[in-house]
Formats: sequence, structure tokens, C-alpha cells
Amino acid sequence: MSDAMTDLKQRLAEISDLQRTLGVLRWDQQVMMPAQGAASRAEAAGTLAGIAHERFVDDETGQLLERAEAAAEGLDYDSDDASLLRLARRRWDKERRVPAELRAEWTREGGKTHVAWLEARERNDFAVFLPAFRRVHEVALRWAELMEPGDSPYDPFLDEYEPEMKTREVKAVFDVLRPELAALVREAGEPADDSFLEGDFPVETQTELLEGILRDFGFEDGTWRLDPTVHPFATWFGGGDIRMTTRYRADNLRALWSTMHEGGHGLSFRGIAPELRRSPLDGLPSFAVAESQSRTWENLVGRSLAFWRGRLPEVKRLFPALEHVDLDTWYRGINRVEPGLIRVEADEVTYSLHIILRFELEQELVAGTLDPADLPEAWGAKMHELLGVDVPDDVRGVLQDVHWTRAGYGYFPTYALGSVLGVQIWRGIEDDLPDLESQLEAGELGPLYETLRERLYRHGAKFLPMEALERAIGATEIDPQPYLDYLRGKVAGLQTA
Amino acid sequence: MSDAMTDLKQRLAEISDLQRTLGVLRWDQQVMMPAQGAASRAEAAGTLAGIAHERFVDDETGQLLERAEAAAEGLDYDSDDASLLRLARRRWDKERRVPAELRAEWTREGGKTHVAWLEARERNDFAVFLPAFRRVHEVALRWAELMEPGDSPYDPFLDEYEPEMKTREVKAVFDVLRPELAALVREAGEPADDSFLEGDFPVETQTELLEGILRDFGFEDGTWRLDPTVHPFATWFGGGDIRMTTRYRADNLRALWSTMHEGGHGLSFRGIAPELRRSPLDGLPSFAVAESQSRTWENLVGRSLAFWRGRLPEVKRLFPALEHVDLDTWYRGINRVEPGLIRVEADEVTYSLHIILRFELEQELVAGTLDPADLPEAWGAKMHELLGVDVPDDVRGVLQDVHWTRAGYGYFPTYALGSVLGVQIWRGIEDDLPDLESQLEAGELGPLYETLRERLYRHGAKFLPMEALERAIGATEIDPQPYLDYLRGKVAGLQTA
Repeated sequence: MSDAMTDLKQRLAEISDLQRTLGVLRWDQQVMMPAQGAASRAEAAGTLAGIAHERFVDDETGQLLERAEAAAEGLDYDSDDASLLRLARRRWDKERRVPAELRAEWTREGGKTHVAWLEARERNDFAVFLPAFRRVHEVALRWAELMEPGDSPYDPFLDEYEPEMKTREVKAVFDVLRPELAALVREAGEPADDSFLEGDFPVETQTELLEGILRDFGFEDGTWRLDPTVHPFATWFGGGDIRMTTRYRADNLRALWSTMHEGGHGLSFRGIAPELRRSPLDGLPSFAVAESQSRTWENLVGRSLAFWRGRLPEVKRLFPALEHVDLDTWYRGINRVEPGLIRVEADEVTYSLHIILRFELEQELVAGTLDPADLPEAWGAKMHELLGVDVPDDVRGVLQDVHWTRAGYGYFPTYALGSVLGVQIWRGIEDDLPDLESQLEAGELGPLYETLRERLYRHGAKFLPMEALERAIGATEIDPQPYLDYLRGKVAGLQTA
Repeated sequence: MSDAMTDLKQRLAEISDLQRTLGVLRWDQQVMMPAQGAASRAEAAGTLAGIAHERFVDDETGQLLERAEAAAEGLDYDSDDASLLRLARRRWDKERRVPAELRAEWTREGGKTHVAWLEARERNDFAVFLPAFRRVHEVALRWAELMEPGDSPYDPFLDEYEPEMKTREVKAVFDVLRPELAALVREAGEPADDSFLEGDFPVETQTELLEGILRDFGFEDGTWRLDPTVHPFATWFGGGDIRMTTRYRADNLRALWSTMHEGGHGLSFRGIAPELRRSPLDGLPSFAVAESQSRTWENLVGRSLAFWRGRLPEVKRLFPALEHVDLDTWYRGINRVEPGLIRVEADEVTYSLHIILRFELEQELVAGTLDPADLPEAWGAKMHELLGVDVPDDVRGVLQDVHWTRAGYGYFPTYALGSVLGVQIWRGIEDDLPDLESQLEAGELGPLYETLRERLYRHGAKFLPMEALERAIGATEIDPQPYLDYLRGKVAGLQTA
């Protein structure tokens, strides 16, 4: 290994340490910190983020990169070192384009817009949100002008979450989904009864159930935690410290699926090869790839008939109120399809329609063909068109998500792309797992995890999303058909079950 | 404010952010982290500590200091700015004397000695500890040679914990304590019965009791936490985020006092003036001053008759097994005096004798008049001389404390000095609190906290320990007499009670 490569790795390792530490600060803030610690925490996190950024974008890193690249010619494309250089180069070039002041302005305006959003939600009035939103929107547009131009003005935003993916590629997928999903919603017919998911479910018992499920997912003692929080998330600080969070509600069981979702994230963090730790490669290729795995463990495992055939008896033992719920009722209930107003409450079939709505509005916002003031009206029209529902107010409409408080365009589509990719990857590995059905039923999830680890997780962030897909299952582009087939099968199964 | 002062403060604020973040990493490690996270955590903490150190000792900080000092002439000695400059100058000069390699060597050898200590304890054999201890001891001696020489070779070690305090000053105090405490132990006579402290005490009920006590101490909602850990400690990340830890045992009630001890630390952190936050002044003058306050809340409040006159009914309500324990029995039991082998289990009267033993051995080690190999024998002889007990083995003798694994000489004396100072300060403020007795009984601890805050806590680390003492109560040196009077009174009271 060249000296420059050694030095570059050392530098990137220290920056990785700072990033992981920022992760600890954020986890602590969401899960443990007393409310009055917020001001000090913001100062500390700001300082750390500033140092990490400075160290990454400075000339010295650039020189190390150049020297390491020169010495690395001829390295195998798939090698860790070549992958590290590609990733570091891509990020360094991007970050160097953004002046510190613009970055600070975006953070500042985002903070103010977040405050305005909270107040607008309180008052259920988009007008309260609009002035601050307009400012952060303008900052985001100025930022985009500094980026490499794409075919679409939306490309730079998308690139933040899906490196080198183009708007047209996403659009191609969503254009297929749009009519098919709408048709499926109609086919699904009358929503199944899921009222058994509401009731009296003591939090300690839910914890016992969920920790058992996560152990079956493959998490080993002494390597993970599951803690309550307000907005569930998962994070990790090396392979031996994986933190999942959940939001228990004592009056319903819905934390089961959000926890399996975070468990899926946790497993993909866990599977990253040890050699990639303490480097920028200790991550995942993109947000959509990450989401594909959380959706896989939430839905393909956690809403499957086989999994619950094995697990429902335990649930009924833990919660005697469910005594009379049979497997069929359970399965239909947890897979209930019904168009609704709220994205985070949406079922598998309608979920992506909520995303397509946001993706289309974001493109118009960025292109300047939709003025921020006209968002509520556009939102209402599209909700009617896509999901056939009428939006009664802003809180249940345009104000429901936090993402736009920082004009974080490009994030939403990764949720639906993740759902699509999750099924595509699942179909691509099924041949390796002839006994998957019985393993799901037995709660033996080790083989599934091992296959995904070997095909996908272990590579960390070495590859672009489509490169990772190719290495996982041989495909080179996102194919919405497996996802549609899966949903069609599910809808059909629900009706005949 | 001069530009140099502004720039220096900004620099020190960022270093303070890094130190607080290290504190979060440590808290998390002790309280939350899964065991397998240790390796990644060590890397992250090492990187952070390295950056904080580099930024502090670099030439730029030195130049800013010089320029700020030049511009600050004529500032009031007690002003925040003058105090900041004194503290930063003292630390910068000290830290500049130590090469990075020596610092790293000390950390590395300390780590190895810690491992050897764990194994030696496991095998109950000092010989297993000795080789590693000898190495870290040598590193510590080399470090001391780089420091400003004092009258005693022990001075540089002491200075790490008690800035500018001299070994002879500590010795003068301990020389008074030594015979008086030994006499008091004899006077105490037959140990009182404290067997009621053992039994069945559910952890949730202890938590309820302790959180109530901490609220009476004055902690406000949303500013603190109390969590279980193995080795209790307290820390803080600004004034609105105070973390106390405790070690509950379901089979005894002794966590009460260790938690009040940590609560005392927490209160002194809480009382630091808001203007001093995010600077090196956001601390306390010394380890002894810090310990004086934890001892105050643990002992002067938490083992007082008045406090329990008010609180015992609640304890009896929470733990029906204590129904027949009357106030007199309770008071005598929680103040039981009995010479023992273990420092951390020692009562108020014998505690300082454990410290004097260590202080005397440390001085001999540092002077070279005691070879590390001879420690167990010297330990046994002194235990017999000071406490009249025979040491049966190394685990209950020389291997009981962790401090020497990093040759952390100078730390132990601060525990006893803290006990002494705590009583001295208490006596010095009593006149301000004519109703203290009835306030203790009523659990109205606000006035006591407010007085200590005003006299001591609010100054943070602005002053040297004796300067802080002078501002708190007008005294300029440590006086062991109030402490001895207090203990004499307690021993007499126990016998006549």
C-alpha cells in the first residue's frame, strides 16, 4: 500500500470516527438526553460536524487523494482500496463545490423552517409555514446551481441520496408503478378487519416479543440495543454496537412492523465487512438500497404468512386478548389495503403512491413550475387523482412530513425505490434459499441474513447502487415488475384467503 | 473584548465541545453501550481526545493566549476573562511539556496494566499485576521529570488533581487526622447494627425513592437523568443535561448514599454560572473541591439525623420490611463505624485512614524508597498500624482499587481532602442558614443549594482550590478541625443516641 493511501486511510478513519461520534450524539439526543440539554448538544454537534467537514474538504485531503489515485492505477475495480478512492473522490469533489457560508445558511434556514413547521402544524395552517419554507427552498436552489448539472434540475438533489442515479431512471420506474398501483388499490376491494391490532398491549410484553424477534433476525447478545423514542430510527457505531429504536404504544401493536423495519436496517449495518469499518465504506450504497433491506425485513419477512404461521402462537400466548384471532384473520389484518391520507400509516400497496405524489411535486418545485404557495392545492389534487381521497386540512396533507423543512428534495423517492429494490433482490436470491418458506415459519432467519450479507451487505458502500445490485443479483437496473407481481399476489391472496 | 480574546474563547469553546462530547461517549460506554462496541468506541474516543489535545497545545493557541494576555492587563483578577486566561495559561504550559509519544505510551501501558489488574484480581495474586505495573510506574516517573519540579517528587502528581497544592500542605492536614481518627475509631466502640439495610428492596422502588430525593435536592424536570451502571459516577453536558448513575442492588439499600454522593456532584455541576459554559471554566477548581460537595450531600445531608427524621416515614412506607426500624436504629445503622479492609465500603470515620495509607505509600513509590514489588507487604503493615486489621489477601488489599493501573498517583488524597473541605465549608456557611435543621427535616434543600451555589458552585473552575475556599467562606487553607469536631460529635451522638 502506498504511503499516500495509508495516510489517506488514516485521515478518513479519523473523519469516520467523528461521524460515528456525531451518530452517538444524535442517538443520545433522540433516546436519552434530557430536554434542556438541546442547546449544549447543538453546539457540540455543530463543532464536530464542522471539524469533520473541514478535515475532509481541505487541500491536504485533496493532495492525498491525488497521490493515492496515481499510485492506485491498475487496482481491481472491486478492491476495497479502489472503491474507497472512488467514493472519497466523488464526495470530495461534491463537497468542495459548496462554500461554508451556503452550507451554514442551509442549516440555519432549515432550523427556522422546522420551527415554522411545528407552529404551522399546531395551527393547521400552511400559510404559517410558507415564508420560512420559501427561504430554505431558495437556498436549496442556489446549492443545486453549484452542483454538476444533470438532464433534470432535480438530478443534483437525487444524487445526494442515490449517487449517480438520474431523475429519468426514477421516473421510468414510477411511470410503470403509477397506473398499476392505482389499479391494484381498486382490485383490493373492501379493507380487511385489523381492529384486533388495537387494544391493551403492555409495553414490557411488546418488548419481550420484539427482542425475541430481533434475536431470531440474528442479532447476537452484546452487540445491539432496542430503545423507545419518538421517531424510530436505527444507527450503528461499528459492527458490535447496533442501535435500533422503536415507538411502543400500549394501545396498539403497530410497533411490531416499525421495529422489524429498523431491525432490517440494523442487519444491513451488521453485515458490512469488518475490513470496511472506520472508513467511508462503512455504510450502504444509497438510501434506496438501505431502505430495500428495512422493507425486506418489515414486509417480505414481517408481513408474510409463513413467518406468522410460526410466530402467531407466541403472540397469542403473550397477549391473551388475541386468543380468538386465527392466522387468516391476522394475515389479512396486518396486510389490510386502504387508501389513506398519511404516508407513514400507508400499507404496502398504497405507500408508493404517496411517494410518487411527492416526487412529482418536488420536481415541479425544483423546476419552478410550481410555486411553494400553490403546494396545498397541488397536493390535494394529486391525492385525489392518485389515491382517490380528499385532503381535509394541511396537517393531514402537505404539512405531514418533516423532510421539506430543510428542502430535502430527493429523499422521498428512495422510500419507494427501496420497496421496489427489496422485492427485486429477494426474487434474485430466492434460488439460493430453497427452504426459505419453512425457515421463515421456524424463525430460522440466519440463512436469509447470510445470503443477503454475502450478496449485498458485506460490500458496504463500495459500489454505486446499480453496481451493488449487479453484484447482488446480476441485474443492472431497477425493475418494478417483481414488486408489482409481489403486490398482485398479495392482493389476490388476501381476497381468496 | 480584544479580538485575540474573542478568538481564544472561540477556540476554547470548540475544545470544550470536544471534551463534552468525549463525556457523552464515556457516559454512553458506561451506561448504554453493548459490550462489543468497545473497540470502535476506543478508536472514536482516541481520535476525539487527540484532536482536542492538538488544538489546545498548538502554537496558534499559544499565540492567541499571549496576545489575549497582553490585551487583558488590568483586568480584575476575579473577572471571567482574567480567570480564563490564568487557567488556560496554566494548562497550556503544562501540556506543552509532554511529548505526544509519552502521553500515548502512558495510555497504552495503562491499558495493559488494567488488563493485568483484572487478571491479578481473578487470580488474587499481586505478582500477576507487578510486571505491567512496574512499566506504567516508570512511565509516570518519566512524565513527572518533565513537570515543574516541586519540594517533593510527589508535587507534580498532586498538581494534576489539586492545582498548585503542595504535598507538604496535604501532609500537614493528614498528620493531624492520622492520630485523631485512630483514636476516634477506638472511641466508637462496638459497631451499631445495620443489618436492616440488607433484605429485599425492589430496584423500581429504590428508583422511586432516589428520584424523589434528587428532586428534593433541587434537580428540575428535563435537566437530569439517573441510570444504573457498574461503577457509579456523575457527569454533565452543559447546565441542562446532568447525568447521575448508580448501582442498585436488590438485596441492600446502600445505593441510597452512593446516589446522594453523585447527586452532590450533579448539584455542583448544575450551579456553575451559565456564562462559564462552553469553556474550560465550566468545571470545578479541583478534585478535592468537587469531592467536598459530593460528600456534603452524601454525608452531611444524607447521613444526618434531621434529614431522616423527615424522610424515614417514606422509606418505611416504600419498604414495609423496615416497618419496625425506628429513627434511632436507622441513624445508628447508617452511621455504623467499623474498621474494615475495603475503602469503598468504609464509614465516615475510617475512610480517611484508607486514604492516608495510600497517600503515604504513593509518596514512597514516587520517591523510590518503596519498590513496587514490596507494595503488598507495606500495605499489610500499614493496614494493621492504621486500622488494626489484618489483610488476608491481595484482592482485599493492594489490588482493590483501579487507580494504580495507570499510576494515577495524587488522586487518592483528594478523597480525604474533600471530606475535610466539605465540613469546613458547611461550617462556614451555616450562619447563612439558621433554619437548616428544619429544612433538612422538611426535605427543603433549595436554600442549602442556593447558598453553596452562590458561594462556591457558580465560580466554576475560575479559581485555585484555596482561592475558591476563600471566596466561599473566607478561609485560605484547609483546616481539619471542623471535620474532626464533626466526626467526634457524630461518634459521641451514636453512643448516647
